[in-house]
Amino acid sequence: MSIEKITVFKYDGSFLGEFMDSAAIEHPLTIRLDNEEFATMVCSPDHLRELVIGFLASEGIIRSVQQISSLHIDKSRGFAYVQLKNKQVRNKDYVSKRFIGSCCGKSRQFYFHNDVQTAKTITSRMQLSVHECLHLMNEMESGSTQFRLTGALHNAALCTKDEVIITRADIGRHNALDKIYGYCLDNQVSLANKVIVFSGRISSEIVLKVAKIGIGVLLSKSAPTTLALKLAHDLGITAVGFIRNERMNVYTHPERIILDHEKEGI
Amino acid sequence: MSIEKITVFKYDGSFLGEFMDSAAIEHPLTIRLDNEEFATMVCSPDHLRELVIGFLASEGIIRSVQQISSLHIDKSRGFAYVQLKNKQVRNKDYVSKRFIGSCCGKSRQFYFHNDVQTAKTITSRMQLSVHECLHLMNEMESGSTQFRLTGALHNAALCTKDEVIITRADIGRHNALDKIYGYCLDNQVSLANKVIVFSGRISSEIVLKVAKIGIGVLLSKSAPTTLALKLAHDLGITAVGFIRNERMNVYTHPERIILDHEKEGI
Repeated sequence: MSIEKITVFKYDGSFLGEFMDSAAIEHPLTIRLDNEEFATMVCSPDHLRELVIGFLASEGIIRSVQQISSLHIDKSRGFAYVQLKNKQVRNKDYVSKRFIGSCCGKSRQFYFHNDVQTAKTITSRMQLSVHECLHLMNEMESGSTQFRLTGALHNAALCTKDEVIITRADIGRHNALDKIYGYCLDNQVSLANKVIVFSGRISSEIVLKVAKIGIGVLLSKSAPTTLALKLAHDLGITAVGFIRNERMNVYTHPERIILDHEKEGI
Repeated sequence: MSIEKITVFKYDGSFLGEFMDSAAIEHPLTIRLDNEEFATMVCSPDHLRELVIGFLASEGIIRSVQQISSLHIDKSRGFAYVQLKNKQVRNKDYVSKRFIGSCCGKSRQFYFHNDVQTAKTITSRMQLSVHECLHLMNEMESGSTQFRLTGALHNAALCTKDEVIITRADIGRHNALDKIYGYCLDNQVSLANKVIVFSGRISSEIVLKVAKIGIGVLLSKSAPTTLALKLAHDLGITAVGFIRNERMNVYTHPERIILDHEKEGI
């Protein structure tokens, strides 16, 4: 559990009294890649191997775990030491360099060069019924005791259209998805007909992560941004938001979402 | 308004129908500093001058707007061009370089070198009553129509203990605080006896931003993380969370929060 006990003065309407409570642990993790500092993130300190693998794949450093010759995590000091089989000549600046272009053959909405190279356009023809979407969100939420205890964690789940396969939680929205990505790569999970269920907002960075993982359906409890929806449109991702109280909004590629009676007729 | 109209297929319990809705605009902004690319962020495209000034101060590049000789914003293309009066020799890597140390004389919880140099320890002796905390959160929320329309924006407000001075909204939690910081620097606002009210979670990065601005009281609607509370403790910041339904949790430096009848006795 990525949770610690803390003391707090609670005001209950009339008094300030001292109580024990739970808070989400936040921990810095620095990735050293081929003996050089590559990035420092703050995260929930669990599933760190998955987080590192997912992050490196998301940044375009690796495409498979076979490219890693060693990965050692020093959890208490907050370091991950990664050696690659083939040393790369990396231009660190390039990773987060602004991309301006209209002829990349993909989305006009990209803003980092790195994303142009790593985000995939999704062509999956899978379909889910509205009921399946609502069911998957309920499944993920009923399993997330850590959020209920702390109120500070984001959840992401990898699912088939029938059930949740794994759920990962993190104080960082991106980290939760990187842990899912790392799990998929580490376990060579087929991404065909998979769905991502997510507690957080649909921002451009989240849509890009889902496209990098290679999944065509993103179901979120929260709101989208305009840039995220333009990217989702261009990258072939079905973005569904505000899934709560048995309602939902389908924003992009609605052809993958069908009513339940339509499913009966398939 | 940082809002755009979008079309959406809404499932209302029985049908999927097409409707018009509102979504928060997300826009990339690249800061070019002395003709070099410095950073690209995604943000809500308003108050961009404040955002740039606050971000540069937060990164330790400037301490006052007097250090800037020119600042030009090309909103449509998403670029900010900044020239400094005195050209710096910057080591870009150093900005986000991991800090490991226990003898810096400040917080033991720092994880970036940059933060050690820019975050201030707060010694303010101001006090607020519980009622004033609850009132400020209500004030900020009642003014935030953009969040109610989109569900995707974070709000931050600069306040005295009696009233909200300004509110800034952004899809990025840090950006909302950088806009506040930029406003303070641009208008030479005295930070004595000021309070930050915030809709988002209290993470380490948020506590660091508040310490950089130089304000000693952070009132949030949401949950804290453990690292944020350790930093708040060390930096002298009163962190109050879960301010909702007339209740609240005081996590650190509770000496600044008093009950209303104690206030009468002052």
